[in-house]
Amino acid sequence: MASIFTKIVKGEIPCYRVAETDDFLAFLDIRPRTKGHTLVITKTEINYLFDLSDELYMGLHLFAKEIARAIEKTVDCERIATAVVGLEVPHCHLHLIPVRQISDFSFERPPLTLSDEEMASLAEAIRKNL
Amino acid sequence: MASIFTKIVKGEIPCYRVAETDDFLAFLDIRPRTKGHTLVITKTEINYLFDLSDELYMGLHLFAKEIARAIEKTVDCERIATAVVGLEVPHCHLHLIPVRQISDFSFERPPLTLSDEEMASLAEAIRKNL
Repeated sequence: MASIFTKIVKGEIPCYRVAETDDFLAFLDIRPRTKGHTLVITKTEINYLFDLSDELYMGLHLFAKEIARAIEKTVDCERIATAVVGLEVPHCHLHLIPVRQISDFSFERPPLTLSDEEMASLAEAIRKNL
Repeated sequence: MASIFTKIVKGEIPCYRVAETDDFLAFLDIRPRTKGHTLVITKTEINYLFDLSDELYMGLHLFAKEIARAIEKTVDCERIATAVVGLEVPHCHLHLIPVRQISDFSFERPPLTLSDEEMASLAEAIRKNL
């Protein structure tokens, strides 16, 4: 069965899109740790980060760097932290999380709740800073 | 003042060394989240991941991929998670953390306490799997 992220890539499930290339897609995490929390994924459904070819692996990280720069310009934060965990969705995804303190980085705390309007305007603001 | 990681690079502070190249060093985190938790750093003292040149940034991630593969062979885990946060030590460092559940990834929980012998033999075992 296709992963939830493959469904997003195909447009079968909507997302707050930030940017995309032929190989990669960036969109807002709907369970954000902090405002601006973005996921960067490979369009191809590969479960594990270290199973990506070196080319795709480097491409993913370079794409994430561009997105991180745009997020920094958009939200108030100390820096953008990164994480790849992958215990939940079996489709490689890199978290870009604006942080000011270590608790912003916790995956065990409840996510923020932002309205549809807030999420859409956040995605648009990041896109404008690309 | 030199960062604690620069002092490790220079050999002024000891570490449980896993691997190194001209540009990068990997060593065990002395406050491990799980057994095998390794830090991968640039030898040059640059504070922020996204301030690395693309060349150094890609090199760091490719080096980390090799180390992750060796850690996987060494410790019992579901996969190797990655994180770059950087709110504590102002010297870019990538965490490689063997995980089985999301709580293994928490930076807010107390670290494991491993003996000097356990740390040394863990580093040696990872080196042998490179």
